[in-house]
Amino acid sequence: MNEANWEEIYQISKKWVNEAGDYIKETFNTSISVEYKSNPSDLVTDIDRHVEQLFIEKIHTAYPEHRIVGEEGFGDKVKDTSGIIWFVDPIDGTTNFVHQQSNFAISIGIYEEGIGKVAIILDVARGEMFHCLKGQGAFMNDIPLKNLSDVELHESVLAINATWLTENKRVDSRMLAPLVKELRGTRSLGSAAIEMAYIAAGRLDGYISLRLSPWDFAAGAILVEEVGGKCTTLDGRELNMLKQNTVFAGKSNVHQMIHSNFIKKGLENNYFLHSPS
Amino acid sequence: MNEANWEEIYQISKKWVNEAGDYIKETFNTSISVEYKSNPSDLVTDIDRHVEQLFIEKIHTAYPEHRIVGEEGFGDKVKDTSGIIWFVDPIDGTTNFVHQQSNFAISIGIYEEGIGKVAIILDVARGEMFHCLKGQGAFMNDIPLKNLSDVELHESVLAINATWLTENKRVDSRMLAPLVKELRGTRSLGSAAIEMAYIAAGRLDGYISLRLSPWDFAAGAILVEEVGGKCTTLDGRELNMLKQNTVFAGKSNVHQMIHSNFIKKGLENNYFLHSPS
Repeated sequence: MNEANWEEIYQISKKWVNEAGDYIKETFNTSISVEYKSNPSDLVTDIDRHVEQLFIEKIHTAYPEHRIVGEEGFGDKVKDTSGIIWFVDPIDGTTNFVHQQSNFAISIGIYEEGIGKVAIILDVARGEMFHCLKGQGAFMNDIPLKNLSDVELHESVLAINATWLTENKRVDSRMLAPLVKELRGTRSLGSAAIEMAYIAAGRLDGYISLRLSPWDFAAGAILVEEVGGKCTTLDGRELNMLKQNTVFAGKSNVHQMIHSNFIKKGLENNYFLHSPS
Repeated sequence: MNEANWEEIYQISKKWVNEAGDYIKETFNTSISVEYKSNPSDLVTDIDRHVEQLFIEKIHTAYPEHRIVGEEGFGDKVKDTSGIIWFVDPIDGTTNFVHQQSNFAISIGIYEEGIGKVAIILDVARGEMFHCLKGQGAFMNDIPLKNLSDVELHESVLAINATWLTENKRVDSRMLAPLVKELRGTRSLGSAAIEMAYIAAGRLDGYISLRLSPWDFAAGAILVEEVGGKCTTLDGRELNMLKQNTVFAGKSNVHQMIHSNFIKKGLENNYFLHSPS
């Protein structure tokens, strides 16, 4: 395999994401046909599927040797991280897309031998594209994003859904609930990609989810790390690009403080933490 | 006192809100001086204060007989709801304003003898203005908002901050936490005005907060009711425009189902509910 031209991949993937964003915006005026996947919270739309197929067609034509992992399952069956893999989420935040027609994103993370290289998250309704080519700095549209600076926990805003703070099957609610009172505030926007992009942009200080798939976090993790943040599983391990993960992203010092004061302590108290399989 | 010209008040207040929005956007490039009010979560900025003073000046000049209740306290000392009162929140969602420079709103609700007449909520960063003159229908910019239709609880998205689902001083967390599993999802955007405007626009199905001031909910309550929704205290009483309230807004049937299945049951179980004073 020839060495990849990452600058070209970066530019063309941004172009494709912008085109997909324009297509999605055009659909706003047509009625959306909604289907249920495994449960009522997991909506899938015609548009989701169509956008993923468009990406797959373009990627396979331009880069036949690259593999694709997509939310809607039209990509390749990927069992290892060798070569170049595109993680494509055509619409991250489908519930928001259906209910609000805003606060959803196209998310693309491109990895080489398991290492993040290119990240693109487009908040379609707002027209905000967060993007980077690893090592060259991250951007929101044309504005360079600053390296993240430390912040006290009581001045931090954390994105976390109420699901993980109340009774649920993934984590003992006693592990994270006490955190709520120590923070300036919590938010839940309903799109992992946007929430992770907001960390990279300094708009949020951390994000926790107990169940995300690689296409949900692939781009966000690259962006957060590009500006000096940290992105791991909830218990501090490296993210696995081949399965669902718990995800814990944030400014380095916020990540460290939450890890030692809440997660490590919770595990010492034998509060359960079930990683998704 | 002459009879008020509500059409004129409606048009001029929209104009003033747009002007204030433009001013706030101009400040995005200057550094923001932040102060703490009573606690670290309660930020106040120079811009907050300046915008409120601009509104007060304009309102007092054009309508010297109207009274004003503003978040920053430059308004009148209002002890009753007689006459016409403007409830002005120059920046609802100050934490978002400071951290994100988005997801905050200017909120103005105008009441006559305690009855809501004009509502304006401008999501400044998005350029979305939600507005109505009571009885003439609500709008997002120029788009008429539809009357709200019923939705099943398991298809509903509720805005509620994690504070009210974990240990706190206002409500026994056992009252609302079980609700999380019954819904399609929860969100927390960090601006009561935007969250209530989103209900009016059909983007969210309900909103609960255990502590809001009249300037936080004055406009939102008018908008929600204009499109057939319901807005009360958490235990179903009429909102009091002279003090802090618990607030529970939503589609009528969502409001009714949550009230009977969770709040009424919680109170029967003697779960505490402390209204703010």
